[in-house]
Amino acid sequence: MGSLPTESLSVEEHQQQQVEMDDTSRTERARWLLNSPDPPSIWHELAGSIREAFFPRNKLSSSSRVKQTWRRSAFSFLRGLFPILNWGRNYKASKFKSDLMAGLTLASLSIPQSIGYANLAKLDPQYGLYTSVIPPLIYALMGSSREIAIGPVAVVSMLLSALMQNVQDPAADPVAYRKLVFTVTFFAGVFQSVFGLFRLGFLVDFLSHAAIVGFMAGAAIVIGLQQLKGLLGISHFTNKTDVVSVLGSVFSSLHHSYWYPLNFVLGCSFLIFLLIARFIGRRNKKLFWLPAIAPLLSVILSTLIVYLTKADKHGVKIVKHIKGGLNPSSAHQLQLTGPHLGQTAKIGLISAVVALTEAIAVGRSFASIKGYHLDGNKEMVAMGFMNIAGSLTSCYVATGSFSRTAVNFSAGCQTVVSNIVMAITVLLSLELFTSLLYYTPIAILASIILSALPGLIDINEAINIYKVDKLDFLACIGAFLGVLFASVEIGLLAAVTISFAKILLNAVRPGIELQGRLPRTDTYGDISQFPMAIKTPGILTIRINSALFCFANANFIRERIMRWVTEEQDELEETTKRTIQAVIIDMSNLMNIDTSGILVLEELHKKLASNGIELVMASPRWQVIHKLKSAKLLDRIGKGCVYLSVAEAMEACLASKFAALSNC
Amino acid sequence: MGSLPTESLSVEEHQQQQVEMDDTSRTERARWLLNSPDPPSIWHELAGSIREAFFPRNKLSSSSRVKQTWRRSAFSFLRGLFPILNWGRNYKASKFKSDLMAGLTLASLSIPQSIGYANLAKLDPQYGLYTSVIPPLIYALMGSSREIAIGPVAVVSMLLSALMQNVQDPAADPVAYRKLVFTVTFFAGVFQSVFGLFRLGFLVDFLSHAAIVGFMAGAAIVIGLQQLKGLLGISHFTNKTDVVSVLGSVFSSLHHSYWYPLNFVLGCSFLIFLLIARFIGRRNKKLFWLPAIAPLLSVILSTLIVYLTKADKHGVKIVKHIKGGLNPSSAHQLQLTGPHLGQTAKIGLISAVVALTEAIAVGRSFASIKGYHLDGNKEMVAMGFMNIAGSLTSCYVATGSFSRTAVNFSAGCQTVVSNIVMAITVLLSLELFTSLLYYTPIAILASIILSALPGLIDINEAINIYKVDKLDFLACIGAFLGVLFASVEIGLLAAVTISFAKILLNAVRPGIELQGRLPRTDTYGDISQFPMAIKTPGILTIRINSALFCFANANFIRERIMRWVTEEQDELEETTKRTIQAVIIDMSNLMNIDTSGILVLEELHKKLASNGIELVMASPRWQVIHKLKSAKLLDRIGKGCVYLSVAEAMEACLASKFAALSNC
Repeated sequence: MGSLPTESLSVEEHQQQQVEMDDTSRTERARWLLNSPDPPSIWHELAGSIREAFFPRNKLSSSSRVKQTWRRSAFSFLRGLFPILNWGRNYKASKFKSDLMAGLTLASLSIPQSIGYANLAKLDPQYGLYTSVIPPLIYALMGSSREIAIGPVAVVSMLLSALMQNVQDPAADPVAYRKLVFTVTFFAGVFQSVFGLFRLGFLVDFLSHAAIVGFMAGAAIVIGLQQLKGLLGISHFTNKTDVVSVLGSVFSSLHHSYWYPLNFVLGCSFLIFLLIARFIGRRNKKLFWLPAIAPLLSVILSTLIVYLTKADKHGVKIVKHIKGGLNPSSAHQLQLTGPHLGQTAKIGLISAVVALTEAIAVGRSFASIKGYHLDGNKEMVAMGFMNIAGSLTSCYVATGSFSRTAVNFSAGCQTVVSNIVMAITVLLSLELFTSLLYYTPIAILASIILSALPGLIDINEAINIYKVDKLDFLACIGAFLGVLFASVEIGLLAAVTISFAKILLNAVRPGIELQGRLPRTDTYGDISQFPMAIKTPGILTIRINSALFCFANANFIRERIMRWVTEEQDELEETTKRTIQAVIIDMSNLMNIDTSGILVLEELHKKLASNGIELVMASPRWQVIHKLKSAKLLDRIGKGCVYLSVAEAMEACLASKFAALSNC
Repeated sequence: MGSLPTESLSVEEHQQQQVEMDDTSRTERARWLLNSPDPPSIWHELAGSIREAFFPRNKLSSSSRVKQTWRRSAFSFLRGLFPILNWGRNYKASKFKSDLMAGLTLASLSIPQSIGYANLAKLDPQYGLYTSVIPPLIYALMGSSREIAIGPVAVVSMLLSALMQNVQDPAADPVAYRKLVFTVTFFAGVFQSVFGLFRLGFLVDFLSHAAIVGFMAGAAIVIGLQQLKGLLGISHFTNKTDVVSVLGSVFSSLHHSYWYPLNFVLGCSFLIFLLIARFIGRRNKKLFWLPAIAPLLSVILSTLIVYLTKADKHGVKIVKHIKGGLNPSSAHQLQLTGPHLGQTAKIGLISAVVALTEAIAVGRSFASIKGYHLDGNKEMVAMGFMNIAGSLTSCYVATGSFSRTAVNFSAGCQTVVSNIVMAITVLLSLELFTSLLYYTPIAILASIILSALPGLIDINEAINIYKVDKLDFLACIGAFLGVLFASVEIGLLAAVTISFAKILLNAVRPGIELQGRLPRTDTYGDISQFPMAIKTPGILTIRINSALFCFANANFIRERIMRWVTEEQDELEETTKRTIQAVIIDMSNLMNIDTSGILVLEELHKKLASNGIELVMASPRWQVIHKLKSAKLLDRIGKGCVYLSVAEAMEACLASKFAALSNC
């Protein structure tokens, strides 16, 4: 390339020209940076995110770019809202066979669990069954997960009763308590659908994975301890959920003999049966149906035993009357005015978030096994509508259950039709068989709940979290201990606080590192990460490892840089009697800078300049360059101090050094 | 370099060898990354930061590495605590001359301001004067700023009275109020010294520059409005500080004629005089002494006028008796037990932070003019001790004043001796001249305070903030409006909340960008920032622009990456009927990853792999590599997918592509 004219030049002239060419292209490349287009303004970004919230981009239209008619777009909107319109047309008899079997298996697990969880939520048993009817049907229309099993779950049931007790005592006035539960369910549904419609799905992410692991384990232990009431047949039991109160209550009951050993014998025998079934099911995947039908089997067997032996006369507590029939309307029972509105809305919000967290975690993990994508926001809308519908038909907060979803999956469900089958089966049993459950012992419900709890405690994952990230483990253990020893709310609060403190800590004390060139490359790396990195004497290369250069860390960064400069200066003076010539700040990590950051940068420039040290900025980003320009800092420092990369900044510094030396 | 053996090879063989060599060095360089030493564990870092808090590195010893004897190190510790031991030995008579002049000028401004600010803090005038005696003397021993003028300031005085009124009404029981003020001062001192001793200086940074600008402006307006009481001679005035209450109170007083016009005439005349003096002083830097002595002049003149005309008989409110003499002890007045302890501690904390913010901002800006360094933590210790000493000698919270520091600087102060001169002068006037101030009209004090306020309102800076950073401006205007329309606390809270919301928003919605190669370089840049960047078809290069890949943003990042992959896939299929081959994730910005992030990364890998797309990681950092290793993710994905830089990852992808093509 143009080798002819250079041949007539001497070697020195050639080198000179080379240096100049390098220089020109370097400044040209720096100009790319300096003249890069303005980033979108904050108003633009705000408008964009609002547009995206209300008119989410339709993947179909954006990819194939078909101009849609009004009718087409209405239909595609409906299909977005009701995924059943998509897959329903291709639904085949073979799939239905699988779904039917899965649905029946699911129902056999669902009926005893629903009764047990209703008990946990301090509601009459039929409300648990109601919750296994309407919400699954609504979800089947609107949801897009194929495996999730909808209905009442242990953690949300416990959460509801734990939080609601402070507002209304269920023992004192069960009707008022029930009304408030429906109201909470309504609010939970409203919050969930609002989260989904406004694409606020990220709010659910605020409960980190580690926090959920800790919270679930704590909740499982708390739920398990509460089952001691049913298992021991204790009459007077504490309303609190923390370990100390519950154990205190149990011991004082045992001490005063307010309990009936027969309950315990019956409950424990069936608990052992359930745990053995569970163990066999886990060992042999083909026998997955054994743990799934074991609860129903236990209910039938124990009911028969109690009926035949008349054990209820000897202190065995029984379920007694369960009101059968279709879900009654509860629309008129919602308490949307009155003194408890604020509290019910708050409890609704907490239940909404916890329920969504569980459902989305369940849905995603099974979707990723089957290799399809689950849109979190759409799921939230579906969950929201199903809970609003539930609150109008005597249901309490429903969500996706860990244990039943696993059963559904193992039973080979193909689509959400298995939920429909399950709902219809539950409905039929509500119509036909509730009177048969009269003699079902409460201890059995307790043992069914207890047998489902080990699935919520994931010790391996906790150990894993400890190994990988100590701060994550702190959030995990905070949630766990909070739930265990204080209350559910405090556990959740501890988890969220610790998680966010981690983010803030990172912003307040950002990493900042001295860099050196990696041998045989143009790449610069942290000298502590790469011991082989080579430092250039007289030129400090510093990288700021924070997304923001802002009020919270600007002074820290300034002081750290100044300390390194003085240390390097001292060292240089001792060894070579030379001084530092330039400080290159690698800004490639900085996403943004605020006014405090700009002030500090200007101060740094002044301070370094007064010591004859040049401040050079390498690869500042879009927004940073824009801010430096609008603060007119570049005009004051000089635009020549900005380079595209650390390597180019270093070359320029070395070139000017040689120029200075040769001028001497 | 080994050119001999290659000459015998054919060109193709040579190229082949070249490729292999590149490959080897690439994997070798990737091994640098994979085998980089483990980062310091969290326990190690914790221990390090604790060590640094209690045994800060002594610059002298670290730089010259002199083995210190016990006595030497004790002396250097003392010199660190009392900088006066350093500069005192070189103090010369010429410096003292400058300091004497500056100190006298300062005292002439200090006396009227102190009386005015004591009035603002709802204390008797002498307490303002006391606060200008002991704290400056203590600071002179321990502080390292040379220009700062210590004493009572407007914002802290207003803050104190605004917050304390909710605890104890100063009109109802002035003695109890005063006791609580001393207690607050004690707590403020304790908090300040604890911040300094434990190197918690960054806590002061939580009030961002923008928030301070807004808060100061709001406070200035609130203070100004409160001066209407003195200026109009109103008897019944509201205790609230918000604009609406104050203006309401003023209008109702004007309406009911509870005010005395003579006060207003007197106050306004001198206000105009003070403002003119201020204006002249700002125009002509040599006349800096004019605005500095104008307040004292006004006091003397107005006192004479009132004395001669007996205006106090005609409704002009006067200061009346000021108790003279040396600061009395107030050690026995501290209320360290009793019902108000929590509230006084809280107010102490707020005053401590606000006072430090002002002092450090003032100190730093003048230190940077004179080109010396101010250690924030040492300053805090000095401020803390001076306030603790103040609380024991009838002073309230003192700090560095904006306006007086500027006067001190203009008057040519050389060292903190000017503060000593000022304190002694104030002490002498307390001993000798307080009886002369009997007839000083209160309206004059109001006009002195009013004339100092414009310096607190920095409209240019607010405009500048708006231009540079809209979110910063939001914090600024939030603080401003909060102080103006709600209360001082709400203003501060709004500012801190908005500032932190910005940091969290950044973590929750991180930038994530598609990159392209910049022409004629190995550098990759954001394709929206650099329109000239070249994309490689079939290989997506994505950079995550967040310091943390964590629970708060992991799902967002996954969804964005998957959306880009499907979009790119659709586009590729339309144009070239080819598929995406690899996704390179540039991790150079990621400082850390948590368990949620690792889960998402694994999910991404699985999902991409199921579509035949390779996931490649470029330049993950120290901690990230360590976490990926301890989570055993690298074992599952394969260590071959990690490269030192995007350029090397791209080369490797292209090489494997060509290999695949040539195998076909």
